Amino acid sequence: MKDETADPGPKTARTSRAARTSRSEHTRALILETALRLFQERGYDRTTMRAIAQEAGVSVGNAYYYYSSKEHLVQGFYDRLAAEHEAAVQPVLAGDRDLAVRVRGALMTWLDVAEPYHRFATQFFKNAADPESPLSPFSPESAAAREAAISIQERVLHGSDTRAAPELSDQLPHLMWLMQMGLVLFWVYDRTEGTERSRRLVERTAPLVARAIALSRFRLLRPLVRQVHEVLEEFLPGAAATRATRV
Amino acid sequence: MKDETADPGPKTARTSRAARTSRSEHTRALILETALRLFQERGYDRTTMRAIAQEAGVSVGNAYYYYSSKEHLVQGFYDRLAAEHEAAVQPVLAGDRDLAVRVRGALMTWLDVAEPYHRFATQFFKNAADPESPLSPFSPESAAAREAAISIQERVLHGSDTRAAPELSDQLPHLMWLMQMGLVLFWVYDRTEGTERSRRLVERTAPLVARAIALSRFRLLRPLVRQVHEVLEEFLPGAAATRATRV
Repeated sequence: MKDETADPGPKTARTSRAARTSRSEHTRALILETALRLFQERGYDRTTMRAIAQEAGVSVGNAYYYYSSKEHLVQGFYDRLAAEHEAAVQPVLAGDRDLAVRVRGALMTWLDVAEPYHRFATQFFKNAADPESPLSPFSPESAAAREAAISIQERVLHGSDTRAAPELSDQLPHLMWLMQMGLVLFWVYDRTEGTERSRRLVERTAPLVARAIALSRFRLLRPLVRQVHEVLEEFLPGAAATRATRV
Repeated sequence: MKDETADPGPKTARTSRAARTSRSEHTRALILETALRLFQERGYDRTTMRAIAQEAGVSVGNAYYYYSSKEHLVQGFYDRLAAEHEAAVQPVLAGDRDLAVRVRGALMTWLDVAEPYHRFATQFFKNAADPESPLSPFSPESAAAREAAISIQERVLHGSDTRAAPELSDQLPHLMWLMQMGLVLFWVYDRTEGTERSRRLVERTAPLVARAIALSRFRLLRPLVRQVHEVLEEFLPGAAATRATRV
């Protein structure tokens, strides 16, 4: 088996590797799907990896191969949500240059994408809120989903015709992500039909955010902007790290 | 026993009622004390009412008489924290009229008062963060502690020489309480020695908050202030209810 002459040649190898990747991606997706369904049905705490494997029709070893713990399944969920948002938000990013419209569009799209998971998110939230948990939005383990969300905010901002105060422009996408986390918190607590109240909050705050950003260039607000800049510089989770990886 | 002529007269009755109240307050405090110690030592989830009663040297029935569930013990903890903050914050409220100094003082005092409970708060936080939990700071059950905290912010503001935009003045104490909840969130996640980073955050943001409030009277910011007012009017948890009870 280890005989290198048995290599079927570059082209075939590539094809079968692709086939394997696709099969493997399929299994990975199936396990995640099954896990999310069971989490919703039985609750996160009461769902075991064994039960997930059984329902997905794979061996327990196979399930652990793809996701080495339940926490990794939730990270998989975060990544999927981020990918779905990235796809759904494209028309907003390519659309209207008005900042209020873009902020509103990006957040509404997130609410649309997240809607099917609302019940799960509600049940699950107390685990993510635990400061010791790798599932917190601020944890190193959540970096990929966090960076993806910040990158969307960056494009919301940079594709608009509004210019913020120059000293804030690096930090604004992070600040907007933090606000998005505030919306997520509100949404988790939201018990209205179709999370109508969260939608209303976006509707009302998007013009406000756009206006505040536009105002940041005014002379009267310079001292305040400088203070905000300094606080963000010191406290914004991951802002420095993100900049560093981009250099 | 039910013979009304056996009544020992108003004065004696009042005295013995007072004595009973004080004994009863003592038992109540002892149970709370013991519960907090056990929560810290063993974790919230693993501490039973039975264990609390045993350690406090009271019967289980007696423990349940004072606190009908573990959740009520945590509400007792919130109320105690609020009472300790109310006592400790007096010098700040009676002191300097500079708004930044007052905002900083009120929050630093909270950090001082809360310091001994930091470890417990960290362990316990995931329970409070559960949207279904009566222990959430937004729950009806937490109303007393919430109102107490808002009342402190009210006095921070009204004792200062800064005047906010008139349409915001009713809502600002609530908004400042919401910011305090943001600080509590930051503090729960804070792992620095003596929660030094939380103190630093207060140090840096207090002047910023004071400046933003002072700026709210400027003409340039009127449209923004109006928008903020409308959003708060619609979304501030409990703001309308609080006003209603005051009428």
